[in-house]
Amino acid sequence: MNAKAPQESRTIMTDLVLPSETNPLNNLFGGELLARMDRAAAISARRHSRRIVVTASVNHVAFNSAVPLGSVVTVEAKVSRAFRTSMEVFIDVWIEDRESGARTKANEAIYTFVAVDETGRPVAVPELLPETDLEKERFAAALRRKQLSLLLAGKMKPQDATELKALFE
Amino acid sequence: MNAKAPQESRTIMTDLVLPSETNPLNNLFGGELLARMDRAAAISARRHSRRIVVTASVNHVAFNSAVPLGSVVTVEAKVSRAFRTSMEVFIDVWIEDRESGARTKANEAIYTFVAVDETGRPVAVPELLPETDLEKERFAAALRRKQLSLLLAGKMKPQDATELKALFE
Amino acid sequence: MNAKAPQESRTIMTDLVLPSETNPLNNLFGGELLARMDRAAAISARRHSRRIVVTASVNHVAFNSAVPLGSVVTVEAKVSRAFRTSMEVFIDVWIEDRESGARTKANEAIYTFVAVDETGRPVAVPELLPETDLEKERFAAALRRKQLSLLLAGKMKPQDATELKALFE
Amino acid sequence: MNAKAPQESRTIMTDLVLPSETNPLNNLFGGELLARMDRAAAISARRHSRRIVVTASVNHVAFNSAVPLGSVVTVEAKVSRAFRTSMEVFIDVWIEDRESGARTKANEAIYTFVAVDETGRPVAVPELLPETDLEKERFAAALRRKQLSLLLAGKMKPQDATELKALFE
Amino acid sequence: MNAKAPQESRTIMTDLVLPSETNPLNNLFGGELLARMDRAAAISARRHSRRIVVTASVNHVAFNSAVPLGSVVTVEAKVSRAFRTSMEVFIDVWIEDRESGARTKANEAIYTFVAVDETGRPVAVPELLPETDLEKERFAAALRRKQLSLLLAGKMKPQDATELKALFE
Amino acid sequence: MNAKAPQESRTIMTDLVLPSETNPLNNLFGGELLARMDRAAAISARRHSRRIVVTASVNHVAFNSAVPLGSVVTVEAKVSRAFRTSMEVFIDVWIEDRESGARTKANEAIYTFVAVDETGRPVAVPELLPETDLEKERFAAALRRKQLSLLLAGKMKPQDATELKALFE
Repeated sequence: MNAKAPQESRTIMTDLVLPSETNPLNNLFGGELLARMDRAAAISARRHSRRIVVTASVNHVAFNSAVPLGSVVTVEAKVSRAFRTSMEVFIDVWIEDRESGARTKANEAIYTFVAVDETGRPVAVPELLPETDLEKERFAAALRRKQLSLLLAGKMKPQDATELKALFE
Repeated sequence: MNAKAPQESRTIMTDLVLPSETNPLNNLFGGELLARMDRAAAISARRHSRRIVVTASVNHVAFNSAVPLGSVVTVEAKVSRAFRTSMEVFIDVWIEDRESGARTKANEAIYTFVAVDETGRPVAVPELLPETDLEKERFAAALRRKQLSLLLAGKMKPQDATELKALFE
Repeated sequence: MNAKAPQESRTIMTDLVLPSETNPLNNLFGGELLARMDRAAAISARRHSRRIVVTASVNHVAFNSAVPLGSVVTVEAKVSRAFRTSMEVFIDVWIEDRESGARTKANEAIYTFVAVDETGRPVAVPELLPETDLEKERFAAALRRKQLSLLLAGKMKPQDATELKALFE
Repeated sequence: MNAKAPQESRTIMTDLVLPSETNPLNNLFGGELLARMDRAAAISARRHSRRIVVTASVNHVAFNSAVPLGSVVTVEAKVSRAFRTSMEVFIDVWIEDRESGARTKANEAIYTFVAVDETGRPVAVPELLPETDLEKERFAAALRRKQLSLLLAGKMKPQDATELKALFE
Repeated sequence: MNAKAPQESRTIMTDLVLPSETNPLNNLFGGELLARMDRAAAISARRHSRRIVVTASVNHVAFNSAVPLGSVVTVEAKVSRAFRTSMEVFIDVWIEDRESGARTKANEAIYTFVAVDETGRPVAVPELLPETDLEKERFAAALRRKQLSLLLAGKMKPQDATELKALFE
Repeated sequence: MNAKAPQESRTIMTDLVLPSETNPLNNLFGGELLARMDRAAAISARRHSRRIVVTASVNHVAFNSAVPLGSVVTVEAKVSRAFRTSMEVFIDVWIEDRESGARTKANEAIYTFVAVDETGRPVAVPELLPETDLEKERFAAALRRKQLSLLLAGKMKPQDATELKALFE
């Protein structure tokens, strides 16, 4: 399996905010955005691995900006690091103003997927080779996030989380 | 209003074919694809005009390839010609094979939108300046399609449809 | 296979415009209407052929009237001509005013379907025998539309499109 | 307000059973059919009264036949009796076999609607004049159902339910 | 098969009223509530029987209170009586006021389900042993409702409906 | 504003996994579960605050077990800690086996909501007083999670995150 660049898994999903997806303030429900990001990220992980993929975890997601009814929302997903059978996918969300055309970053999120065969068993995936500065930065941070996640799940001891420990020294 | 390039209205909507959108052969319903293309094309027309837009017409659409359940479908829309208050939008649809990653053209379609103000009255839109060869070709053909459409609607006489008439000489 | 009358495939689908199907002007999305018409027309083609049917193409569709939220919309579909394995279906769309009860024609559209067996292979369908004047007129026009479609797809030469050519003479 | 015939409120809703509406046996969920019947019956009550209508009650509904995925289902609704501000609507449901074209009665149901103004207050509706034998029979039975309903709600005393009482004598 | 208490099949479904489920007065569609109640009641019947269950009938349902957009709606279902292969399920619906936290009873409904095996054939279900006063009252009334239902369906003679007949004496 | 117990915001949403919510392995999409959990947690935060609430963030969520089509899924949400205008909500997800009735923990997740007024401005919420051991444990951990979240967002310095720092000593 040849290593791949993040560009090869880049997935763009631009769509409207429909009336059925809004809360009482007429903004997109957080839960709907989580579902759209899951679909875009799943396609990205599938493009990297060419396998069936299942969502393994969602990293911390902050909803900083409300997304009003009728907005054009662009969800962009790219694999940020590949582990043995899992892939971290980084998702950026923009909304654009109809009148000025200005794009604002509304959200970012990080999902992890596992590649599986038809019986649901994990299978190996290609390596990821980051190219741009941003891709390299996200690639490096992915390891810290993985340690944090193992630590919080009680599957790694604090003293072994070398990347994280360094933060506090 | 400054003229714009087709690139400025380019809209990409990549998504999965979900189980609720399939027919008894387990392929995407034609009607669902028509609805997705309408949303992508509306966003494209909105990006060109920065106005509210409403679907005015759908040109002939041929469904050449079946799109199976679970496919990754990419709908790509770009304004192909702007008239006074209306815009023709050209839509290309691809599906990609999960295992090989190969992309196949599944469909193309042409929708027309009108830009309107908050009361629903048509308003002028910027001109379109095609850049690539394909964009220029589609720009030229848009005039023939407009004549054909007026002709079929009985709003133009056959002898005035100069672009079309030339086809038969 | 006995020939059938258009009446035998007549399909009526009356339903409300629901809040989840509307655009920012509170009118039915063009794409939603295209999807409803596809379902009604598919049922009509199925009634004529008693086979599984798949959408082959959508002819030019003009959206002349907006269909507001809460409207009662009636989609009526009838096979207008049968070819060897395909059927042209003519669709009329009406909306009715709640207070006066008046019905207005909101749209018409023409879809083509192909009858297939369980493996997706085209199969022959019964002939169509038009009865009323309107049915006869639509039956005749169906041949011109088929030639136009073949012509635009590059599958027929302009000089062979005798029905169409006559229009310009 | 002139009296109206049942025919004037006749509403036909023919549609497919979609994959998202089925239970583990691959048949239409009872709840989905109840929702479709509600929409068709509401349109029928609206056609009779030309008012906004809200569902007041659903009479006993028996689900005798399963409705398999992919079926063509026809829901037909007609006002069966008008009271002062409410209307009883009778709904017949058929499914048809794709291969033979045979139609089978799958269900019947009775819903009651109240006509209201924009503030939600009940308003008077036209009288209903049944014409066919079946319409007359359903019109007569509507009174017994109304008494039964008042009786079960504790709003009528058994000895006043003359129509019902007669059944047991 | 051991008898079970109603508590063992108690099912709670709390959810919001979403914009896509409302009528022109901005209240929940009757049909949508019928569908939600069907799902909750089906889960309850499944918990009692541990079998696949299908909706057999819906008893008289009265919609006394409107349920506005954005409400929190709680649907609570419990088996009220088990017959040989069928179960009556009693459903209570509450809405709660966001500001005061007050809960109001909005509806009640009674559905009947049949337990079936994988081929759709009815199978026996455990007995139900009511415990609280309300459960005992509903248990007793279930027999009257069953007789009424058989009577209306013409499957029982009025003189045999002893429970019902007593009402009129 | 009086302090409240977690019990007062407890929200239970039991529902089926419908065919339209499943991935190619016939299990519930991760994104759909995220959306259901968001709705249940929002109701819980609303019950605690009696205010409009908007999703502020989603903590790390791990999808440990697949949730197959047709499963009965119970999402249970309870406020785990209240800050000045925000609330952390803890969500437990169970699936139950139809045949044995056994319940398995399928997931847990933590969402944060902010209470706002009609103009979208944050407003104060009541304090939370944990009662059971589990509630007290989750209440304590909520502070660590808040520090971690501020730290990862660059809004707190590592040396000030006293609760977290202790983990590595």
